[in-house]
Formats: sequence, structure tokens, C-alpha cells
Amino acid sequence: MKIGGHSPAWLLPAGFEDLGPARAEALEKHRRALLDLFARWGYRLVIPPMLEHLESLLTGSAADLDLQTWKVLDQASSRLLGFRSDMTPQMARMDAQMSRDHDQRRLCYAGTVLRALPDALGGSRAPYQVGAECFGVAGPEGDLEILSLLIESVALCQDTEGCVLDLGHVAVARSLVAALGLEQTLEARVLAAVERKAWPDLHALLEGVPERASARADFTVLAGLHGGREVLERARSLLGHRPVVRRALEELDFVWEALHGRYPHLAIQCDLAELHGHRYHTGMLFAVYGPQRGEPLAQGGRYDGIGRSFGCERPATGFSLDLKPLLRDSLEPARGPRIWAPASVDTALWRSISDLRAQGYIVVQGGPGPEAGAAEEGYDGWLEARDGSWILVGDAPEFRFPAG
Amino acid sequence: MKIGGHSPAWLLPAGFEDLGPARAEALEKHRRALLDLFARWGYRLVIPPMLEHLESLLTGSAADLDLQTWKVLDQASSRLLGFRSDMTPQMARMDAQMSRDHDQRRLCYAGTVLRALPDALGGSRAPYQVGAECFGVAGPEGDLEILSLLIESVALCQDTEGCVLDLGHVAVARSLVAALGLEQTLEARVLAAVERKAWPDLHALLEGVPERASARADFTVLAGLHGGREVLERARSLLGHRPVVRRALEELDFVWEALHGRYPHLAIQCDLAELHGHRYHTGMLFAVYGPQRGEPLAQGGRYDGIGRSFGCERPATGFSLDLKPLLRDSLEPARGPRIWAPASVDTALWRSISDLRAQGYIVVQGGPGPEAGAAEEGYDGWLEARDGSWILVGDAPEFRFPAG
Repeated sequence: MKIGGHSPAWLLPAGFEDLGPARAEALEKHRRALLDLFARWGYRLVIPPMLEHLESLLTGSAADLDLQTWKVLDQASSRLLGFRSDMTPQMARMDAQMSRDHDQRRLCYAGTVLRALPDALGGSRAPYQVGAECFGVAGPEGDLEILSLLIESVALCQDTEGCVLDLGHVAVARSLVAALGLEQTLEARVLAAVERKAWPDLHALLEGVPERASARADFTVLAGLHGGREVLERARSLLGHRPVVRRALEELDFVWEALHGRYPHLAIQCDLAELHGHRYHTGMLFAVYGPQRGEPLAQGGRYDGIGRSFGCERPATGFSLDLKPLLRDSLEPARGPRIWAPASVDTALWRSISDLRAQGYIVVQGGPGPEAGAAEEGYDGWLEARDGSWILVGDAPEFRFPAG
Repeated sequence: MKIGGHSPAWLLPAGFEDLGPARAEALEKHRRALLDLFARWGYRLVIPPMLEHLESLLTGSAADLDLQTWKVLDQASSRLLGFRSDMTPQMARMDAQMSRDHDQRRLCYAGTVLRALPDALGGSRAPYQVGAECFGVAGPEGDLEILSLLIESVALCQDTEGCVLDLGHVAVARSLVAALGLEQTLEARVLAAVERKAWPDLHALLEGVPERASARADFTVLAGLHGGREVLERARSLLGHRPVVRRALEELDFVWEALHGRYPHLAIQCDLAELHGHRYHTGMLFAVYGPQRGEPLAQGGRYDGIGRSFGCERPATGFSLDLKPLLRDSLEPARGPRIWAPASVDTALWRSISDLRAQGYIVVQGGPGPEAGAAEEGYDGWLEARDGSWILVGDAPEFRFPAG
């Protein structure tokens, strides 16, 4: 066995990685725990394809994903296909395609999505996306359910000490912008400036607008509307004359109250200027951050009507997370005792091995045995022939197998 | 809620499909059972990336996969990338890259692979590949272990009544071809003709070969070497003067004997003319077929030295299967009782729901309740407020939750 120098065939493209046994098994353990959690909440697992026609993946408000999507030409049809860069639009398509015998539908999923470019510098281009989507529940009750599931999902993967839930609502900033009655292109630029929180750019864009003085004042108020629950009260008194804003604040208040009752130790903040993904979202926005902030651990929001292009426009809210960064703090999963067995084809040995495996033992047959240092190989015991029987020797609980 | 007509956005590319809840949950159940089985045999889970540099995916003997590989240009590096169409070469790369502190290594994997063209007409272009690879075990003991694991894997997914294990060995046909001392191009064409079992083509190719009479006779013998265990005996007497053939037959005999002891009801056949994937394989070949034959349910073989291009040439044997077709006969997984709860945010109700979920109940909050026909919605019971408590009513075992 020869170890060569650095071969170019060893290098992976930037943003892609191998998960070795410790991380892969931790991912599998968390994947199972999350899917089991979703199942107990009535969310059914579905598996959409890795590849779809580009126009299905980028339909309607999902068009935002265009730059993020790897594209290939299908030899079979000469049509352009895309690799999924987000599974949420696929869920909307599947919901629209499934029979209409339930007015609510809860779906969940787990799998790799691919990004043409990483979200952050040096970031992954292959997040392992796990998420849940609730269709057909219009009120803040739907958002409350998704938020509760999001919080329990993060808690299942890591210690939530120091984590913060950020709440937002696209209706607040949108109603301020809508009130200006701008033409479409300018409105899009204004919304984009709010999304970037680029307040000087925003004021520059508003130069020619007749109501610029009151607009300036409104946006200055908006920029300051972040912090604890008192922000909702302040927003009500400053912007509550707009019915859309008042309704959004009531929804946020309903959710905040209920979450505080359910998870009293959870830190909640709100930022009413938050507009992340506003071309896609239609209501509440939410994200959980770890103590170091950075990228959110999990995020989601309401996106009513996304199924329109598939012939089924209805309420939708959901969340997703990338399981890979959540594994950093995770321990290797618990495993059964690891037993070594010699490479003999003796039938009695085979029965002993099968018996141990059926009991959850890990049995490795062959390779360097106890003489070669079973402990260094990480074994807890080994099988040894003694007086016509196979005996389990070592740290593992002793076990005698009848011969023949 | 409006259901539109057939929208083109609904159609998936040929060879791709959605797995709805019943099939997705069956797949997840089998995936877990297989990975747990592999773990008990000492196989560690790893997760290779979906995308790699094309030259790593197609290195050495994996170049066969070229036509099957979807290719994309990486915006970040302007290099050509490929989507994995088989995870085995990735395992060889990972084995070569992992530290050399174990002389044997057992790895397993489960995930989607993508094919530019389906294997069979109307077939899938996105098999869900699950497999196990054993590195560093040179003898037939390694093949026996992989064969045993293959058989137990298939048995875990479906009834093996009527299934047949086919054994082969590339060394038999190869040694006949090598003995002719042909130049490389002709040799490749001769091997390809044997692979297709195109005997008339083969005889035509041999026209100009000096030893064509004895070659013709040898290949006629080879073409007939399929059937039960007596084939090994016949091969020994007809071709056993070649040491390479004799060794291959001894390996097959060793494996056959041991498998018969372990799985006495398993039907085994051999076909010594079988050369499937001979550019890749270096020893024993195996495949399990269902009662209807068609595509194999699982297959594998020995492929020593594949890690050469990664700087680590060593023995390797393994198998893989596509989980999707195996699901056809599968039942929906067992699930906990399904309970309906009203959409109230009452704290005591929330505690009752959380309690039930912790016990493995599926609790769906909101949507049409018992009055709307809980049974039709597939519920086994529902939560109802009665005398200040939340009571579980219905077919599910009764359960009373203290209020407040």
C-alpha cells in the first residue's frame, strides 16, 4: 500500500466536502431525530427529485433562485434542467399536485440542495436542507405551529442557550412603500434598499417623490423598530393608523405571547425593517441565530400563493435549516459494543456472529485481531474458540455460544 | 382554492419522479434498516459530495461512467464538474484519502446518484443508491462478507423467495482472451463482444487470429459454462489447465460452499461468461435477481486497485442496490395513533399535545375536527375539553390530562 503525493484528483471543488464517519453518522442521527419529530407533529415525508425543468424550479416568486441554480441541458429532451437550490418551491408544486381531499397539508423533507455560488464567502454549496411546510392554514396559528416546530428542531440539534429568535413581517415595510404609489421599477429599487437596510440609498431614491418628507420620517421610524416586545407597542403608536400594519402587529403579538408561554426561556427579538426574501414571502418572517449570530441556524416565513403557477394558490408557511453547520457541537452517536471475530468460515462462529449482531453488537470479521492490539483498533471484545465453543472475551459483557 | 388545468410546470423530466408520503416513508424505513444492518457489520457511514471535478469521478477504470455523467461548468473555477452517477469510485477516493491507521476499512453510503440516460427504457435517471464497500481484504473472505451482506440487505427489503444469486469471475474469460496475445484495440473489441455475449461477432473478430481454432473451441466451452454448482467442476476439467482459471474457480467454490452453509434456501447459479463491468472489476462478480429477472435487485464485485489514481492501490470489493424499485412490494411503515387537536393556544392543551407527542403519538393541531368526520381524515382520536381537563377521545387508548 503506497500513499502518493498530492494528486489533483483528491481535491474537491470549493464549497463541497466529504463527510467522514463521525460527521456522517452525527448527520444521520440528527436527520432521523428531526424526521421523527416532524412525523409526531403530523408532517408527512416526501422526496422531490434533485433535478427538474428549470421553469418549474424558478416559477413565480422562486425566480429569485435563478442565479443560485446549476443548469444542465437534458440529452433526452434538449430542454434546460436545474438542480434544486431550495426544496420549498418543490413542496408547493407537490402540494398543488396532490389530491385535494385535505384542506390542510403538512409536508417535510430532508436532502441535499445545490447552490451555484455559496451563500457566504468560503461557505457550502451543498447544504443539507431539512424542513417542514404547512399548507392551507391562513392565520397566525399556522406561523405559530411552524415557529414552535422550528424552535424544537433547533433544540434537538444543539443547546439553545444564547440563541435568539428574530421575528419580522414583510407587511410593515411593504405598506410604507406601497403608500408612496411609485411606479414598479422604482418601487422594486426602494424595496431592495430597505432589504439591504441601505437608508442613505433609500433617501436618495426618494428625492423626486412628492411625499418625500413624510416618507423619510416613516422610514426613519421603521429603521429604529427593532428590539424587544416594546417595539410592537411603539410601532402601533407610530404606524398603527395603517390597517395593514396594525394587522401585522396583531399577528406578531399573538405569536410572541404564545411562544413565550410555550418556551419561557427563549430570547425573542423583532426587527420590523427586516425584508429578507420579500419577493417570496407574504407575511411573517423568522430566523433563529446562535450566540455568535452569523448565518441563521434555521429560518422561514409565510409565502401564501406560491402554488399559483401550479394551479393551486393557497396559504403556506414553513421553515428549513442546513443540518451540516448544526453538527459542529454534536457528539458522535452512541453505538453498540464493537467485537472482533476471526476470518474463519466455521458455521458455529457464523451463528455466534449473527446472534451478536441481532442483539445490536457491532461485529467486524477479519483484520488485525486481539494479538495485534484489539484495544488500539477500538474493539470492546473478541470472539475466541475455547473447548469447542465460541466465547466473547474482553470488556463487553461475557457471552458463551453453544458449539455446532 | 382553485385547481388549474394541466400546467407544463407540473411535468417532471423523463426518468425523475416525486416520492409521495407512502413511498417516501417506506424508503426512509428501509434506508434506516439497511444502514443499521451495515453498522452492525462494522461498516461506517460516509457522505461524499453530489458534485466533483469530472476527472476525479471518471478516474481510471471509472472512465466507463463518462456517458452516464451529467456535466456542468463551475462558475467559481471555470472547471468541468460532474454529478456522481455511482458512489463506488467516491468510496475508493475517500478510502485513499483517509488515514492509513487501519489496514482494513469498511464504508457504507446511501444517497441519490444521477444518470444522464436511464439504464433501461423508461427507467429511472435518479436511483437511490445504497451500498457497502470493503477495502484491504484481498481473499475470497472479503467477497464472502460482501455477498453475505448483500443477501441480508435484499432479504431486509423484500421476500427472497424465487430470488437467485448469480456468481461470475472476470478472470475466466479474461485469461482466455489474454492467451490470444492480441493487440490492445482488438483485445478490447473481443472483450466487449464477450460482455455482450455476441458469439458470432466474437468469431468474426477472431478470423485473422492464428490460434482461432483452439480459441473458437475455448469460447464455445465458455459460452456453455452457466448453471448450477456442477459448472465449476466442468470448468475445472475443461479450462483448469490455466492457473488463473483454476484460482478463480477455487474462489467461487469457497464462496459457494460458505454461502450454502449460511443461507441454505438461497438459489445460487453461476455464469462464467459473465463480464459485466469488466473494465472496472478484477475478480468475482455477483448479482441478485428477483423472480422476474429484469434488472438485478443488487449487484457488486471485486475491483482491486481502483484507488490507484488517488495514490492508494489496494484490494476492494463491494455491492450496491437501488432502493426505489425494492419498495414496490413494501408496506407503509407502522405509525403511532393519529390524534386531532383544536387550534386553540390554551397552555394546558399545549402541554397535553407535547405529552402525547413525547409518547410517540402523532398529533395534528387544527383543520377539520371530529365533527367534520375525524375518521375520514384518518384520525384515531381527538382532544376535547371536558370539566376543565383535556381528554383524549376515540379509538386510541383513553388518556386524561390534568388542567392548568
